[in-house]
Amino acid sequence: MFATSSLLRTVSRQFSTSATTMSIKAKVLVYAQHGQPESVLKCISHELPSSPQGSDVLVQTIASPVNPSDINQIQGVYPSKPDKTTAFGTSEPVAPCGNEGLFKVLAVGNKVTSLKAGDWCIPSNVNFGTWRSHALTDESSLLKISKTITEEQAATISVNPSSAYQMLTMFEDLKPGDWFIQNGGNSQVGRAAIQIGKKLGLQSISIVRNRDNLQELVDELTALGATKVITEEDNASREFGKTIAEWTKGSPIKLALNCVGGENCSNMARKLGKDATLVSYGAMSMKPVMIPTQLFIFKNLTAKGFWITANVTRVPGSKENTLKAVQKMMEDGDLVDVKVTHVPVSADGSEEEVFKAFETALTNSKQGKQLVRFT
Amino acid sequence: MFATSSLLRTVSRQFSTSATTMSIKAKVLVYAQHGQPESVLKCISHELPSSPQGSDVLVQTIASPVNPSDINQIQGVYPSKPDKTTAFGTSEPVAPCGNEGLFKVLAVGNKVTSLKAGDWCIPSNVNFGTWRSHALTDESSLLKISKTITEEQAATISVNPSSAYQMLTMFEDLKPGDWFIQNGGNSQVGRAAIQIGKKLGLQSISIVRNRDNLQELVDELTALGATKVITEEDNASREFGKTIAEWTKGSPIKLALNCVGGENCSNMARKLGKDATLVSYGAMSMKPVMIPTQLFIFKNLTAKGFWITANVTRVPGSKENTLKAVQKMMEDGDLVDVKVTHVPVSADGSEEEVFKAFETALTNSKQGKQLVRFT
Repeated sequence: MFATSSLLRTVSRQFSTSATTMSIKAKVLVYAQHGQPESVLKCISHELPSSPQGSDVLVQTIASPVNPSDINQIQGVYPSKPDKTTAFGTSEPVAPCGNEGLFKVLAVGNKVTSLKAGDWCIPSNVNFGTWRSHALTDESSLLKISKTITEEQAATISVNPSSAYQMLTMFEDLKPGDWFIQNGGNSQVGRAAIQIGKKLGLQSISIVRNRDNLQELVDELTALGATKVITEEDNASREFGKTIAEWTKGSPIKLALNCVGGENCSNMARKLGKDATLVSYGAMSMKPVMIPTQLFIFKNLTAKGFWITANVTRVPGSKENTLKAVQKMMEDGDLVDVKVTHVPVSADGSEEEVFKAFETALTNSKQGKQLVRFT
Repeated sequence: MFATSSLLRTVSRQFSTSATTMSIKAKVLVYAQHGQPESVLKCISHELPSSPQGSDVLVQTIASPVNPSDINQIQGVYPSKPDKTTAFGTSEPVAPCGNEGLFKVLAVGNKVTSLKAGDWCIPSNVNFGTWRSHALTDESSLLKISKTITEEQAATISVNPSSAYQMLTMFEDLKPGDWFIQNGGNSQVGRAAIQIGKKLGLQSISIVRNRDNLQELVDELTALGATKVITEEDNASREFGKTIAEWTKGSPIKLALNCVGGENCSNMARKLGKDATLVSYGAMSMKPVMIPTQLFIFKNLTAKGFWITANVTRVPGSKENTLKAVQKMMEDGDLVDVKVTHVPVSADGSEEEVFKAFETALTNSKQGKQLVRFT
């Protein structure tokens, strides 16, 4: 399973400039070919120097979430892909897994200015490969995160809350008192949008699936800051449109966030006012975005898509600004909700132990967000 | 049928300032309530002074097309509606029909500067009421049209070719050599887009319905300037995507014009490149705009709507600029195609005769564009 001989070559190369340095055995989840994670993933180890040079930073992972997009990436059905490399010491090129995670700085090279030992940081870009115990990387690949937020918040700040924040702020110029509507109100992004929306002074209508304990969920989302929570059946009812009009007092709903598609999306679009924008970031129903043509023609609706990976590249500085704003909300207690299941593993554990932790997280990933925590 | 007594009052009022002026008996198609045209339309007449005062202009209609949107307006299912008025001398308020048409100036008031007797003109705004024999109106309601184009071209310049021009120029910054794709390639707007696109140096793919004499239509549209004409079956075939890629040589298709909706629209959207725009202006399939979600998310597709009535208001000067550009193309022979069926009627004819002409045009309106021509 592990290409020991080429690993040794890499280790030798890494030690060529500081032969007497202590080393760390880093474990990293990789794949050589795309496929189902259980078939193609393996955990390999490689040695890293414990005293980084120049602008290098040595980090140990605190927590790595398993996101649906990480799995899609391994399956080969996600447009953003990490480069394959032999830098981990394998004979054939492999790609590292995971795009989001929180690290603790163990040591820095003498040219590093933005980070010091003990600091927290996250990858500044996607495709970093966060499913690993340690990494040695250039300072520019990392962004410092202050310890004023929890580890769970910091480990999951880059995708869901950042997506919610950018969708609420980068498409329509919403002012306090303005309304937005979203489906998937109980998703991670939906819950983040409720909280961030409230902090921005916005009023929200969140569409959720009907269920036995509906009132419980309504109460929970309302406590998070939802103005109104409605079911898919409410959303589908023309009659119910009058109730919404009473709530909004004729104020046009300017923004819709769609992660469902199909009829749900059509019905949500009907609630929008003139010149509104419908932003799609998911397709949980597996159906396409469906929008009545007359809404485009006579209401001047705009439909756009949102992909945080592309958006932060398209808009320079947007990742940093978003992190700053979201982190502030987390510090102030405005954004409290992170529902995760912890999967603990020792950073000094064996390849098999680290592999097993991610295997467990992958197996349970449909039962809620899994967070592999290195101790 | 005709409210003679109130008509007389209007006539008296109109003549109060110039009692000795000759008058003209104007016929106008109106409706008091929305409904099917055959049930609610009537033709009324009213007297107009033959010597207009001040900034007034007296015009005689040359030609009035019957557009689908005119019919929808009468049915009450169109968002833009003319105000109802008693100015035609009726006791109950009525709305005039028709939004597009060509007029000849019969006489102008002494303050009129932009028009003189004999000039051609078209309404500067919608809801003018063009289904009539004559009109007396303020100079500002009319735009002069030079006689360098045909009557058919001038009478139908405001909607179809203007829509095609604006959709090709106001959504994406297309450069010569760039590609666009459209469905409804054989529609009036589609044929205009082919010709205008060619004049702008653009390359086009037009999707048409399959038919027995397909090659005939392909030859016809190619002669108009279409780069490629494909069927809905071609558009639906994933295999055919390769053929399109060969045509475009990897150049991304940046704009799609959609007047069909449904699966046709989904398949057309799949042909688009990154950051492209899909503009919907109709829904001939009666199905909604359907677009695979991943195109929004991973290709950053934007979907918009186009309604020329709203667009010319939203963008000041766009109507004048568009008319100028389209008229130039018509003058230069770049935009030659106007397929209309003439329905002749005398401008001095009776109410019954004028009514009958529009009745005939309405009856035949599904067999191609009808043009009521006043002689």
